[in-house]
Amino acid sequence: MNDAFQVHSDPELWEELGMDVARFSGMPAMLTGAYKNIFLSQHNRPEKMSYFDDMVANIHTGRIREIHDAKKGGKPVIGTFCVYVPEELVVAAGGICIGLCGGAQGSIADAEKILPRNICPMVKSAFGFKVGKICPYFQVVDLVYGETTCDAKKKTWELLDRYVPTHVMEIPQMKRERDKRLWLDEVKDFKAAVERITDTVTDFDAVAAGIRTINAKRFALQRLNSLRHHNPSPISGKDMLLIEQIAFYDEPVRFAQKVHELCDELEQRIGLGVAVAPTPTPRIMVSGTPMALPNWKLHHIIESAGAIVVNEESCIGTRYYKDLIDEGSKDLEQQLERLTERYMKIDCSCFTPNDDRIAQVFKEYEASGAEGIIDYCLQFCHTYNIEAVKLREACEARGIPFMSIETDYSPDDAGQLQTRVEAFLEQIRG
Amino acid sequence: MNDAFQVHSDPELWEELGMDVARFSGMPAMLTGAYKNIFLSQHNRPEKMSYFDDMVANIHTGRIREIHDAKKGGKPVIGTFCVYVPEELVVAAGGICIGLCGGAQGSIADAEKILPRNICPMVKSAFGFKVGKICPYFQVVDLVYGETTCDAKKKTWELLDRYVPTHVMEIPQMKRERDKRLWLDEVKDFKAAVERITDTVTDFDAVAAGIRTINAKRFALQRLNSLRHHNPSPISGKDMLLIEQIAFYDEPVRFAQKVHELCDELEQRIGLGVAVAPTPTPRIMVSGTPMALPNWKLHHIIESAGAIVVNEESCIGTRYYKDLIDEGSKDLEQQLERLTERYMKIDCSCFTPNDDRIAQVFKEYEASGAEGIIDYCLQFCHTYNIEAVKLREACEARGIPFMSIETDYSPDDAGQLQTRVEAFLEQIRG
Repeated sequence: MNDAFQVHSDPELWEELGMDVARFSGMPAMLTGAYKNIFLSQHNRPEKMSYFDDMVANIHTGRIREIHDAKKGGKPVIGTFCVYVPEELVVAAGGICIGLCGGAQGSIADAEKILPRNICPMVKSAFGFKVGKICPYFQVVDLVYGETTCDAKKKTWELLDRYVPTHVMEIPQMKRERDKRLWLDEVKDFKAAVERITDTVTDFDAVAAGIRTINAKRFALQRLNSLRHHNPSPISGKDMLLIEQIAFYDEPVRFAQKVHELCDELEQRIGLGVAVAPTPTPRIMVSGTPMALPNWKLHHIIESAGAIVVNEESCIGTRYYKDLIDEGSKDLEQQLERLTERYMKIDCSCFTPNDDRIAQVFKEYEASGAEGIIDYCLQFCHTYNIEAVKLREACEARGIPFMSIETDYSPDDAGQLQTRVEAFLEQIRG
Repeated sequence: MNDAFQVHSDPELWEELGMDVARFSGMPAMLTGAYKNIFLSQHNRPEKMSYFDDMVANIHTGRIREIHDAKKGGKPVIGTFCVYVPEELVVAAGGICIGLCGGAQGSIADAEKILPRNICPMVKSAFGFKVGKICPYFQVVDLVYGETTCDAKKKTWELLDRYVPTHVMEIPQMKRERDKRLWLDEVKDFKAAVERITDTVTDFDAVAAGIRTINAKRFALQRLNSLRHHNPSPISGKDMLLIEQIAFYDEPVRFAQKVHELCDELEQRIGLGVAVAPTPTPRIMVSGTPMALPNWKLHHIIESAGAIVVNEESCIGTRYYKDLIDEGSKDLEQQLERLTERYMKIDCSCFTPNDDRIAQVFKEYEASGAEGIIDYCLQFCHTYNIEAVKLREACEARGIPFMSIETDYSPDDAGQLQTRVEAFLEQIRG
């Protein structure tokens, strides 16, 4: 274990961002402890994980400084909560797009002073980070761009707007032609909102560059996920999850390069037969709702129980990077249409019907060589929770071991989850 | 109390409808007991309530027989779950539109065999009625028309479709021009779906007649609610709620006539100073989520505690009847546009933003002479639950006593609610 690892502090920067510095100053030490325990204690990690370790060490300092400097230089900085908000258009305007989903229990009490308790922990965590002024990313954004993918988020944006300018993009609930037209108009509104910050219009070349950059990031993640599917796996599920989480706040060009460097190492490992777990190790695919940083709870339970997570079918995982945008557009209108087409492939449970997702789950199940599916549902997420009924039936029909879990960020149910996961692994081991 | 009152049985009809007759046969007796206890025990009820008592007595027999006969005659029978589905177009086709929202605890265990537990009791109750084959209305419909107003309903329709043909209407989430266009297209799809059952096209005159009929029903309810606002009230809140619930399954022309007969009686009562409760009685307005038949829980608690409910700002109440459709259209296209405009005035919390609703709450608060608001939220209804944050703040700013309640259909929290309601009434009494 790397005992020297430490999440850095920069109280002056935080002060400048209007944070509650006194309260936040305990955060780096807490995160250091959790990270050492969950990540650095792993055996035989790839060396190229060191970049991602550094990204965690600099999560509240170096990366924030970069964003802060870009903002001072007039670049737009947009916070989002959903893979549906097209970051290509932010990058096209020279800006920075940051996923602000919250994955920590620590900010939930702040949220519950205002919001109802029985809504999704991710929404509460994010809202609480802003209300409590304990997230430098929330502090550094020019505005946040929410969307209407679920009831809790849709209505929370109305309240969040009091603390930070919050725009909302309407996501249609079906995928017919009329829905695609509606969504294309929303994409154009989003482009205009980003342009208002820079007071310049983003032209064809700029959009082309934005699409190339984000395509390249998604492609790097596709390559990594594909290598990770090798049996035995050359990288742990926890490390993969971490990288997927870092994808939402790192600089995209550098990030893609670092992912490729890791991929090169993993290819060598595969060639040499180096794995992170002995064979046979039960291979688990996780499906369902996303896991925002620092939500490592389920992966840590699964891998501590002697299995390995080999795929995340969720918005933190494949749903974010499985589709690229066609780069061969002739004009701006076609660029935006093709961007819209790519985004309409996202098989979020907010759509009805959403049967394409079931097919996608099985495609990923095959590709990853998984031996069972754990469907992960954030508490009170009605759409994924109800869609799990269909997913369970489809798994049972195919003889695929399936377990669904509904949980929040609290450690209270960790023991119970551990017991359930262990029983599930026994079932797989036969 | 009318000891002769009895909810009727007709096992032969139920058999014909494919119901679980053995299980359902206990229902009339249970409903009889509850109805006697909650409604017939009231003092000094208007005589013209006898029609509505009869509608309850015939809820599983006479009214079902009427609908069954109409269906045999080729008329479309459509089940709905939301005031957003335009019944004018069903009536225009000579058909019958029935609100299928479930308000009973008894069917929830059936639903929970399939659906997650922590979703809205109204959705679970309705779904359970169909799965358990214990609702004659569900059995008699040709198809149900769901919508996308909330996450739980949207995803449950996918499962309900296995038991009864279920179409879904997409309700936009904002109210801009592009949303109105989308919704006009949905209305046209709905009209076509109804027409497919009768295999005829509904023309201008038929739509005009449908609009007039439903306008007349809504107008009768407006008149009744207006008279009910008189202080002291000439009718109880429970009786008003019952009539509002019956509006969703009764024949609309007859229903409007009977409501007007009751209104005539209430005018006489007001002239004679006849009231259902002594003056001063605390006057409570209920806002929030709808109360489907036989959900009388909160009204019964409030009125048993010595107050009177003077307004329902919800989809079972004013949100259903506050707006009429302009009848002066020149052609079918204009009819549908004006219909769409009327429906877009519905201030459901599914919209973002939805600040018009706050203004409407205060308008009704003034009109009803209420002295406090109890906001009623069905458990796990995220949109109303989060919108209640704004409503509470707005009430506090105006010095209006406000209490929010989140509950389900179980009797378990009745004692706790009673205590909270009594404390709230003490606050109002000063």
